[in-house]
Amino acid sequence: MASADDIRATVRKYVEAVGSGTAADVVALYREDATVEDPVGTEPHVGHAAITKFYENIEPLQRSTELFSVRVAGDSAAFSFRVVTTFGEQTFTLDPIDVMTFDEDARIVSMRAFWSQDDMVVG
Amino acid sequence: MASADDIRATVRKYVEAVGSGTAADVVALYREDATVEDPVGTEPHVGHAAITKFYENIEPLQRSTELFSVRVAGDSAAFSFRVVTTFGEQTFTLDPIDVMTFDEDARIVSMRAFWSQDDMVVG
Repeated sequence: MASADDIRATVRKYVEAVGSGTAADVVALYREDATVEDPVGTEPHVGHAAITKFYENIEPLQRSTELFSVRVAGDSAAFSFRVVTTFGEQTFTLDPIDVMTFDEDARIVSMRAFWSQDDMVVG
Repeated sequence: MASADDIRATVRKYVEAVGSGTAADVVALYREDATVEDPVGTEPHVGHAAITKFYENIEPLQRSTELFSVRVAGDSAAFSFRVVTTFGEQTFTLDPIDVMTFDEDARIVSMRAFWSQDDMVVG
């Protein structure tokens, strides 16, 4: 099992990559057969190809992220963070809570993102 | 499926009951066959009898709680909150992130609590 410190490091890298990295930067943190359910209740994206396609949606957007808190338990973590996306004068702020599981190398095996459209703050 | 508002109401009642209710108050929010994994990675408590026993551990303690944020997605929610337990002059502060699923009446079907001993702040 990965150590809590290694899991926290992957979470930090993930939030940074979502904020300023390419889709490839994000996907590199996932195991090849990983699953992404974002938001929870939607059909999961399975495997690197599908996950890459998913993160390519945010690649062209001007965005920034901030990690709030991380809670590690066993091979899992839950964390809250902020994603701000900017379109011209408008900003879209979302604070999801994500849950991830990790393999022994602290690669992400599964990700589930808890949020809904109601949580999006437009400013 | 329960509405997001009903799910949020159960989460609020849960955090209040953990802060100042009896074990019975907390357990009443769970469905009879519910599961509680607290913290994640430990053996789940299954059913009202086992869950009651679990919450009876905190019943005699002087405690207070505060709900920080709730994210609802489908029939699930993730939320961060604070539990402060006081023993004489000492306080133990823990900010877990919990994930719950709910039935159509917004009763809790499963609870998983993400935290570890490292997250406990003794003051």
